[in-house]
Amino acid sequence: MDAYRTLERRFERLSGLSGAAAILNWDQAVTMPRGANATRGDQLATLSGLMHEMITASDTGALIEAARDEKLDGWQAANLREMTRAHDRATALPVDLVEAITRAANGCEMVWRDARAADDFAALRPHLEEVVKLTRESAAASGARLGLEPYDALLDRFQPGLDRPTVDRLFAPLEAALPAMVDDASSRQRPARVPEGPFPVERQKGLARALMTRIGFDFDHGRLDESTHPFCGGVPGDHRITTRYDEREIVSSLMGVLHETGHALYEAGLPEEWVRQPVGDARGMAVHESQSLLMEMQACRSPEFLGFLAGELATTFGDQPAFEPDNLVRLYTTVKRGPIRVDADELTYPLHIVLRYRLEQALIEGDLQVAELPEAWRSGMRELLGVTPADDRTGVMQDIHWPIGAFGYFPNYTLGAVLAAQLHRAAIAAVPDIQSALREGDFAPLLGWLRRNVHAHASRFEMPELVEAATGAPLGTDAFLAHLERRYLA
Amino acid sequence: MDAYRTLERRFERLSGLSGAAAILNWDQAVTMPRGANATRGDQLATLSGLMHEMITASDTGALIEAARDEKLDGWQAANLREMTRAHDRATALPVDLVEAITRAANGCEMVWRDARAADDFAALRPHLEEVVKLTRESAAASGARLGLEPYDALLDRFQPGLDRPTVDRLFAPLEAALPAMVDDASSRQRPARVPEGPFPVERQKGLARALMTRIGFDFDHGRLDESTHPFCGGVPGDHRITTRYDEREIVSSLMGVLHETGHALYEAGLPEEWVRQPVGDARGMAVHESQSLLMEMQACRSPEFLGFLAGELATTFGDQPAFEPDNLVRLYTTVKRGPIRVDADELTYPLHIVLRYRLEQALIEGDLQVAELPEAWRSGMRELLGVTPADDRTGVMQDIHWPIGAFGYFPNYTLGAVLAAQLHRAAIAAVPDIQSALREGDFAPLLGWLRRNVHAHASRFEMPELVEAATGAPLGTDAFLAHLERRYLA
Repeated sequence: MDAYRTLERRFERLSGLSGAAAILNWDQAVTMPRGANATRGDQLATLSGLMHEMITASDTGALIEAARDEKLDGWQAANLREMTRAHDRATALPVDLVEAITRAANGCEMVWRDARAADDFAALRPHLEEVVKLTRESAAASGARLGLEPYDALLDRFQPGLDRPTVDRLFAPLEAALPAMVDDASSRQRPARVPEGPFPVERQKGLARALMTRIGFDFDHGRLDESTHPFCGGVPGDHRITTRYDEREIVSSLMGVLHETGHALYEAGLPEEWVRQPVGDARGMAVHESQSLLMEMQACRSPEFLGFLAGELATTFGDQPAFEPDNLVRLYTTVKRGPIRVDADELTYPLHIVLRYRLEQALIEGDLQVAELPEAWRSGMRELLGVTPADDRTGVMQDIHWPIGAFGYFPNYTLGAVLAAQLHRAAIAAVPDIQSALREGDFAPLLGWLRRNVHAHASRFEMPELVEAATGAPLGTDAFLAHLERRYLA
Repeated sequence: MDAYRTLERRFERLSGLSGAAAILNWDQAVTMPRGANATRGDQLATLSGLMHEMITASDTGALIEAARDEKLDGWQAANLREMTRAHDRATALPVDLVEAITRAANGCEMVWRDARAADDFAALRPHLEEVVKLTRESAAASGARLGLEPYDALLDRFQPGLDRPTVDRLFAPLEAALPAMVDDASSRQRPARVPEGPFPVERQKGLARALMTRIGFDFDHGRLDESTHPFCGGVPGDHRITTRYDEREIVSSLMGVLHETGHALYEAGLPEEWVRQPVGDARGMAVHESQSLLMEMQACRSPEFLGFLAGELATTFGDQPAFEPDNLVRLYTTVKRGPIRVDADELTYPLHIVLRYRLEQALIEGDLQVAELPEAWRSGMRELLGVTPADDRTGVMQDIHWPIGAFGYFPNYTLGAVLAAQLHRAAIAAVPDIQSALREGDFAPLLGWLRRNVHAHASRFEMPELVEAATGAPLGTDAFLAHLERRYLA
């Protein structure tokens, strides 16, 4: 196993570098002073360039060939498959292009922060054009090397193996069913009382930390901080969630923290002995989103958990009628068409994703120019959601993804929701007391099932195999639509 | 200039990696959850190993040879000299040893944090033994390569060119004069009132930030945070000072922040066009300490500035008799023998350094074992300072330096104090209104002189040339002893 072992050592080093980059990215979002952006861009570009050189080192291809003939166990063979994937992907791109994208995305992100605040798309435009141009170049080069269409090559970056036919197959039933379901749910729902603040930030933090701990988050191996755009970052053994606080609001920010906790628990549940190898990574971003959405949508917005949460809210902020369990259920299942994706409810959310999926495909395929984006956004919103955003700030500039070059990411949110429903159905079939335990705020039965059936496998299997093994069926929209029906139309 | 240009690009990349490591180190001290230590150690070891490989790449030596024949201007020639220095130093050590030291120091630092708190030297001992063993190996290897004695090779790491004869020449007059001066000053001093707290942490932070800004610190390019052991870290354009707050105390913690600000301003004043090259680095740690000590001891503890500070303290915390200018002067020039270096006054501090200088030489030369350190510490403290520490927590374990492998660093504190006095004497001779401006809290005349005469030169010259050019004389103890005489015995 000489060749395989040599590859393992090389990828272990790569994991050191990617971990360093993950911490630098977290720092940039959470703590870095704004004047340091150019320097940070240089550091991140240096790390990207080095990682790229290491994966594409002239002997890596030969080592992979040689390792194929070595006797490997199941995990090692899967690790070699993931190494090959990383190598094929990396050798498709010249190092100059990799560094250029990192630098452009870094600059564009910083401009976006100001441009969004100022509702100034014109300021963002040249930077976004540069990011799109470089992303198209890289998609074309990767696609040529991997035998994929350019946009599929972008999908594959975030969820290996994912392609447009799969997305289209899963999105079609949603596009068909959701608009009518939204109408139906909107007309049936009873109004919910909105909790009255202020909700002091320190108490919000305390409650968030207590609930995270309850779900299974270990603060000896992680942090909760603040950033403009909440995310889950960090490295294995150091999981860093961010959120934002507003004294006037508790309902959605609390659920945001529980969502990110789902991401962090997936990372924390990856098998210790493989965390520094490609096979030890999470199995793609659709699976990642399934873990956050399962925690948020299936577990934490369930009537069982909301009954428990009612008591916690009353204890933390003082009781009020809005904290009654029935009201919390109404509040957390309110359906409302709106312009903002991250504020969207479970039922309208997929329609926000469909819009982004359409637009980013068109951008990458050259059918849409960056200059045309704001108008295309507005007309798409009107068509899919019946909403016209008041400005670009709450329209096309609302998300960080495109400014940082994360084209091909958006579909994973909805694929994650679909997978979450299917996993949850399988979990409660296997462990019937999962939902009743949530009444006591006990997540152990649910987390145990997820650890055994999802987390522990890391990237040992391809996503379709993982889903089939965990749920007994290929990924489909049945469980998700049934869940929505039950929750919003029963 | 092909060879020189190739070297410049290589060192630019190195600067990206060392910047990444600097941020990871800051994060480890300020924000990292404790369970992440092993992972962070791996990341830092990976970065160190890569930097080492880059400097020692097989063609670097030949490029340096070739660049010597190219036509270079003064800065470029100095840059080549510093590159050569880095290369010679790095090629002395095998990469395995570099990674082993980084890893051992990282682990030892974490153990030290707990062991110090628990006054448990036995817990620290095996980790410190490992660090000492690896440091001795590396000092011997570096010394052999650079033609230096092992301990001189360690001194040279922090202040290039520094050796024991120089340290001994400068320390001898201090060892001779200080004990009697301490006695004399102690018997003359009038007691000072200690300000009565509490001093709310938020107000302390506000005052610290206001004073830092006044001195010239730019918060768009830096931060002020909290850590157990205050330090100045970060990277060019992102200067990160840490401190610690105690509601009962303001006197020493405030001065600590002003001290670290002196470090940060040196970094911020290095010439922009050279910050990613070796010649753009600070000119060694003795010079670095001179910048912090000049700011703290010469400027901020002067009667002129303390008159200004009196008003700021009264405004921030409410007036009290202890905030009267005369009392502040007495307070900030109180002489008291004590066990803790970082709490020591200006007059006793060098004696703490002399002890450490003796002990670390003996450790590196094999004349003293780690197991014997606590006893050697106690007897040295009795001899030099007439003080016996109550325990190892306030004795041999008080400093972070040895646990992180920073042997050879301590002498720089006192060399810095000596240099600070000499620079300050030259500055006020050249710009007579420096001290009077401090009465208004105006640091611009002082900072301007330092930027022109110290900061702007970075590592263009060797330290002796820099000192001679700035002050018209070689480094000596006259200015320092005259300053102490004036302040404590006049």
